[in-house]
Amino acid sequence: MGKRSFPIVVSGGVLLLAGFLVSPVNGAEEVSWSYEGATGPVQWGGLDASFAACTEGAQQSPINLADAIPAQGGTLEIDWQSTGAEVVDNGHTIQVNVASGSSMRLEGRNFSLLQFHFHLPSEHTVDGRSIPMEVHFVHQAAAGDLAVIGVFMETGAGHAAIDEIWNAIPDAVGEPASLADFDPNALLPDGLAHSRYAGSLTTPPCSEVVSWVVLDETIAVSQAQVDAFADLYPMNARPVQELNRRFVLSRADSR
Amino acid sequence: MGKRSFPIVVSGGVLLLAGFLVSPVNGAEEVSWSYEGATGPVQWGGLDASFAACTEGAQQSPINLADAIPAQGGTLEIDWQSTGAEVVDNGHTIQVNVASGSSMRLEGRNFSLLQFHFHLPSEHTVDGRSIPMEVHFVHQAAAGDLAVIGVFMETGAGHAAIDEIWNAIPDAVGEPASLADFDPNALLPDGLAHSRYAGSLTTPPCSEVVSWVVLDETIAVSQAQVDAFADLYPMNARPVQELNRRFVLSRADSR
Repeated sequence: MGKRSFPIVVSGGVLLLAGFLVSPVNGAEEVSWSYEGATGPVQWGGLDASFAACTEGAQQSPINLADAIPAQGGTLEIDWQSTGAEVVDNGHTIQVNVASGSSMRLEGRNFSLLQFHFHLPSEHTVDGRSIPMEVHFVHQAAAGDLAVIGVFMETGAGHAAIDEIWNAIPDAVGEPASLADFDPNALLPDGLAHSRYAGSLTTPPCSEVVSWVVLDETIAVSQAQVDAFADLYPMNARPVQELNRRFVLSRADSR
Repeated sequence: MGKRSFPIVVSGGVLLLAGFLVSPVNGAEEVSWSYEGATGPVQWGGLDASFAACTEGAQQSPINLADAIPAQGGTLEIDWQSTGAEVVDNGHTIQVNVASGSSMRLEGRNFSLLQFHFHLPSEHTVDGRSIPMEVHFVHQAAAGDLAVIGVFMETGAGHAAIDEIWNAIPDAVGEPASLADFDPNALLPDGLAHSRYAGSLTTPPCSEVVSWVVLDETIAVSQAQVDAFADLYPMNARPVQELNRRFVLSRADSR
């Protein structure tokens, strides 16, 4: 397998989000962007007027997680269900769209799980260090804003749930393949201790509507599983962005 | 006494700050601004290119203090001394410039007290409520950024230290009058429980370089003392600004 280069391709899930978050997106006007070269991260803000936040925003993601302030609040409850799902290669990552029924609560607000997807290497760093991969669980509140849970994926033993997903990746970009009932809880570590901060989408349009929750504990995947993802997407991580005096709060929750 | 309307007048202390914080300010090009009308707060950002943050910034001050998150960190130490001082009417407020020797520490960083000054009514609000006055103790770190301690002034018994200052206010704007040794500790409440957040100067150029610390406990001044200030400055408070998802942290310190 070589790196996929199909230029545009936004999945239905992402389009749904974009519709909520920025001025209406016309499917015929999707703008090509990438992780390197002339349409890479440094250029995103100039590729389309709707991408302006990518360069002009002051609450961008990802960030380097360091010096988190222990705080109360940030109460995190995760209520995910095994549901029907579909796997899509959206041209930027492998994404799993889930059926309704899974949710999280943060600070007493409810967010519904829409999809999760993968980055290689990790987008957030910890004290300057990258982790081999990071999975992002994207939730949306009724008001339209998002809460995303990030889980770092270190290399270690192979992960059965990752095999399930990788085995279902369709050959064609943009064409969802159905996945048998999938339990996203399989991709959570034991504890829910986390850092949280106010950030953005890590892909265009970089909308500053995300309450980020990045878990301290990691899950393990095998080097072969990382390599299989790298065959499709050798690098799909936006570089870390300026903190701009945002407080990063930490909480030692456990499940 | 009527409201003072001398149009420009930036005190030496403020000029010093401005020199640190924005592109060099030429004393001959000072820009007139006010708290109402054509040069009022809504217009500040357009009065001068160097004031752009007043309208374009996303970490502006003051704010309404509400829903603060109890957090560790925010360790606050105040080490103020009785020093020589001068009182100046700078055309926007009454300001007391202090001699060197007083400092504070916030999160282990050291800031030197430069001056303190007064607003009527309070600039910060608490759960939507204004307080009669607010005093701001402006400290600067070696790196140039500021930490400002805000103390609310409720009406009650008269305050001897306020009398000292009010009695020294010179008749002319912009001409400092010396004050006998003054102990700023007299203007602190008993406890140092506080809210803190990342904000800005509340006057042009509205630079986003201020770590704000607003104390929970208030000090008392008499209605006559408030009225005396109001004779000079009936309203010198910028309206509260958008929070823009900033975390406000609270800490129950005590002296």
